[in-house]
Amino acid sequence: MTQENRWVAGIHAVETALAGGAGRVRRVLVDRRRRDARLGRLVEHAERAGIRIERVVTRTLDEQVPGIRHQGVCAEVRGRGVLDDNGLAELLGGLEHAPLVLVLDGVQDPHNLGACLRSAEAAGADAVVIPRDRAARLTPTVERTAAGAAALIPLAAVTNVARTLETLKESGCWVVGTAGGAEGSLYEADLAGGLALVLGGEEKGIRPRVRSACDLLVSIPLAGRVESLNVSVAAGICLFEAVRQRRAARQAD
Amino acid sequence: MTQENRWVAGIHAVETALAGGAGRVRRVLVDRRRRDARLGRLVEHAERAGIRIERVVTRTLDEQVPGIRHQGVCAEVRGRGVLDDNGLAELLGGLEHAPLVLVLDGVQDPHNLGACLRSAEAAGADAVVIPRDRAARLTPTVERTAAGAAALIPLAAVTNVARTLETLKESGCWVVGTAGGAEGSLYEADLAGGLALVLGGEEKGIRPRVRSACDLLVSIPLAGRVESLNVSVAAGICLFEAVRQRRAARQAD
Repeated sequence: MTQENRWVAGIHAVETALAGGAGRVRRVLVDRRRRDARLGRLVEHAERAGIRIERVVTRTLDEQVPGIRHQGVCAEVRGRGVLDDNGLAELLGGLEHAPLVLVLDGVQDPHNLGACLRSAEAAGADAVVIPRDRAARLTPTVERTAAGAAALIPLAAVTNVARTLETLKESGCWVVGTAGGAEGSLYEADLAGGLALVLGGEEKGIRPRVRSACDLLVSIPLAGRVESLNVSVAAGICLFEAVRQRRAARQAD
Repeated sequence: MTQENRWVAGIHAVETALAGGAGRVRRVLVDRRRRDARLGRLVEHAERAGIRIERVVTRTLDEQVPGIRHQGVCAEVRGRGVLDDNGLAELLGGLEHAPLVLVLDGVQDPHNLGACLRSAEAAGADAVVIPRDRAARLTPTVERTAAGAAALIPLAAVTNVARTLETLKESGCWVVGTAGGAEGSLYEADLAGGLALVLGGEEKGIRPRVRSACDLLVSIPLAGRVESLNVSVAAGICLFEAVRQRRAARQAD
């Protein structure tokens, strides 16, 4: 786990970082023209904790976290805060909604990892899981391709993905893997509840042991002659099919 | 229009190329171990037209068109065969199904264009439209990222995208543009019939005149704080939402 600092943005994310304990937040940048109550309470909280507050113009925030809806506040946080299995279980245990987790079993290309983080954050996923040894690192290319999402979505780097899938099941996730040859279609699977979506790497897909640990394998139905999709496109399609089903389920309630 | 040769693969694509007229196909590679009747007729047709036939081992085909289901045959075709407006209208006029077209209004990044071509081919789209002046070219990076799809899916390079949208409407397409601020959600739009999906470039989205020419604007509902998705991911989500709705409509029939 690297210890470089990262930026989190938005009222909720900064509140979460402040709640993360003493010394975690190095400084908070606040838009000097914002006046809303929740932001005010956040600043008071940070001041009481002895954290440096910098009141800045909007543009400074725009430049610090480009492409992110920062709601007038961002914070520099120590370390990347990459989670391990325990941290992941803790995070999921604290949720008040059915979890949505993206598991990438060995995505190597930094553009793909970045685009996956961006899609996962945009879909409202709660975390992204990668294997500690096999995956692309959070390099500047990943961060840039992620368009800021790398600082927003919790990332867990785990030693044994198959074992982590068991943890995810215990946390209320149905574990759905995607595999080219799978009989069931993505569109026939029920993705509206707690869900972990598992995608494999660019070359070999999901490894056999990880595959065996899935509750269900599905494929995206391809109508053309190319044999597969780009992994970040496939992840986006799966994540947003879950979003669609969850919206439909909410509307039906 | 560049005149480099390209490879098409699969029985239908090679038949299409052979039907495209004398001199279009330079040579045909056939798996020497395949014995099926349709492939036999294809080879006879090519021989009668005086085209060179090379009987090769499977691996030669695999290497010539990597990642493509070649069905035992591929062909080297003169020129890239990029269509103009007339060629596009002709192509769509000859279809026996409701068209599905992807329009990319100024995607600049070659990785994104390649991934879009790959997704479009995989979704069974009939063509991809790009503006002649503004878009990324079919560079080797595009071809590689497209995983062979650049040689499979008809590409039209047009001078005026807004005018082409009118042509698409005449060809039976409902023209649906995606725009971050649009009120309607992708999932509420009826995408099961003839459809042209319009996506904008990485920075500025769809240009105003192209936007005005759309029948409907929709957005992909984002739940997180990043403001947009990678354009190739967004294209994949839209294309496969159309695939999902078409499958559902067919099953309901």
